[in-house]
Amino acid sequence: MSECDNCSHDNCSSCSSKPEPTEQDINIEKFLTQVKHKLVVMSGKGGVGKSTVAADIAVLLSKKGFKVGLLDVDLHGPSIAGILGLTGIPINVVGNKMLPYQYNENLEVMTVQGLLTENDAALIWRGPVKIGVIRQFLADTQWSPLDYLIIDCPPGTGDEPLTVVQTIKDAKAIIVTTPQEIALADVRKSLNFCNLANIPVTGIIENMSGFVCPNCHTVHYIFKSGGGEKLAAENNILFLGKIPIDPQVVESDDNGDPLAHLGPETTLALEGIVEKIV
Amino acid sequence: MSECDNCSHDNCSSCSSKPEPTEQDINIEKFLTQVKHKLVVMSGKGGVGKSTVAADIAVLLSKKGFKVGLLDVDLHGPSIAGILGLTGIPINVVGNKMLPYQYNENLEVMTVQGLLTENDAALIWRGPVKIGVIRQFLADTQWSPLDYLIIDCPPGTGDEPLTVVQTIKDAKAIIVTTPQEIALADVRKSLNFCNLANIPVTGIIENMSGFVCPNCHTVHYIFKSGGGEKLAAENNILFLGKIPIDPQVVESDDNGDPLAHLGPETTLALEGIVEKIV
Repeated sequence: MSECDNCSHDNCSSCSSKPEPTEQDINIEKFLTQVKHKLVVMSGKGGVGKSTVAADIAVLLSKKGFKVGLLDVDLHGPSIAGILGLTGIPINVVGNKMLPYQYNENLEVMTVQGLLTENDAALIWRGPVKIGVIRQFLADTQWSPLDYLIIDCPPGTGDEPLTVVQTIKDAKAIIVTTPQEIALADVRKSLNFCNLANIPVTGIIENMSGFVCPNCHTVHYIFKSGGGEKLAAENNILFLGKIPIDPQVVESDDNGDPLAHLGPETTLALEGIVEKIV
Repeated sequence: MSECDNCSHDNCSSCSSKPEPTEQDINIEKFLTQVKHKLVVMSGKGGVGKSTVAADIAVLLSKKGFKVGLLDVDLHGPSIAGILGLTGIPINVVGNKMLPYQYNENLEVMTVQGLLTENDAALIWRGPVKIGVIRQFLADTQWSPLDYLIIDCPPGTGDEPLTVVQTIKDAKAIIVTTPQEIALADVRKSLNFCNLANIPVTGIIENMSGFVCPNCHTVHYIFKSGGGEKLAAENNILFLGKIPIDPQVVESDDNGDPLAHLGPETTLALEGIVEKIV
């Protein structure tokens, strides 16, 4: 007799036995068949601008006329609502379905931030709870049929990305990094993770690659440069592009209007990346 | 009858019943009673330089003659080994105890990186496994009696920081942030976490606060400035100091010698912070 036979918990994290497909499994499947491309935006290290890049790509794709869903599964540090100016607006629930934010005609957004009664509330959740919440975002959100579902994962290779790739079998990864070695070391772990989880990597983006002094116009590679490009080449992965350090990105994100005032080089870099993704 | 009564798993994450103290509990307690100060370095958002600051503080304290332990519990993205130039050196095990790295006469270092057979291996671990590993680091490491145990947590408010604060009852938190609002939003979640977990906050450090152009010497607040200081004041928390953006930090970390070539302003900032901590 297995030790799991006596366990009466629903979705016990320790149990190895596979249950019959639940209503939730069926709802997830139903949604995912209506999504053409599933892109998981990952990073090895935090603070490399992953959420900003995910939001920028989602907005740019939606402006090109694609139907886009943006799902924030960074449950402990959800930034998407802030970047898109949605903080403090509650997610509506109709029947047993959550209605995603409609950022524009083509872009639907779902984030745990919209379910918090206080903006600063900390979600002190252990792994099994997080798995449940992420699956609910897929099953119980009133998504439209989508061309792209962009999923913003927390950094690392823990419960959240693992749940995403185990639930969405045909997902592809986009990996965001900064150029310095200490960030690349973590990216190599992410590549390893994708490999083990059998997730193809669409490409690598190098963010914060060079800062142009607004005063004297010299370029300073604060976090070095070229590391992401080199890593992509070494691993035979498409290099999607370099995005410079742009203080306007910080300003625009803090103001909830991510593409509003970006410098021309940043805009060009982002548009090039989106072209390659399409 | 509770649903837990039927569950035969050891340390089932779903069970609410409290087991008798195990040998591990006793070993952890034995170690912790020999540590004067336990400082948990946390951040809301990743990439704010938390690991760098944790390593810098640990090295500076050790150079002042304190006995220091530095424990990296960022299991998915362990950076401490890289920053201290310890990558690729395996942790030795004698009997059933792991021998921490001896970085210098006064500084002992423990990180999961030293237990990996390949440097780039990804730890695809769910919550319950991570809890077990962190507790093992406390129980089964051959630590000396310490003046300071510095614990480098992954960003956010998930399993790792939760395990640390539940296991080390008299821990205090140091919170590292960058100045922009999108980072501060996550710091407020961390403060909330400390509050709920009953962990006093020793202070807030504002990192990446201003970049001095090496060419024209104008200061650019790429990630804004003053946000961490303001947040500390608003919450009646000690502000430990601002650390500027210094490309030499990136360089020194990548070379595994964190304090080697820092600019004078960075060194001054770090020394001021350590003074306040002491």
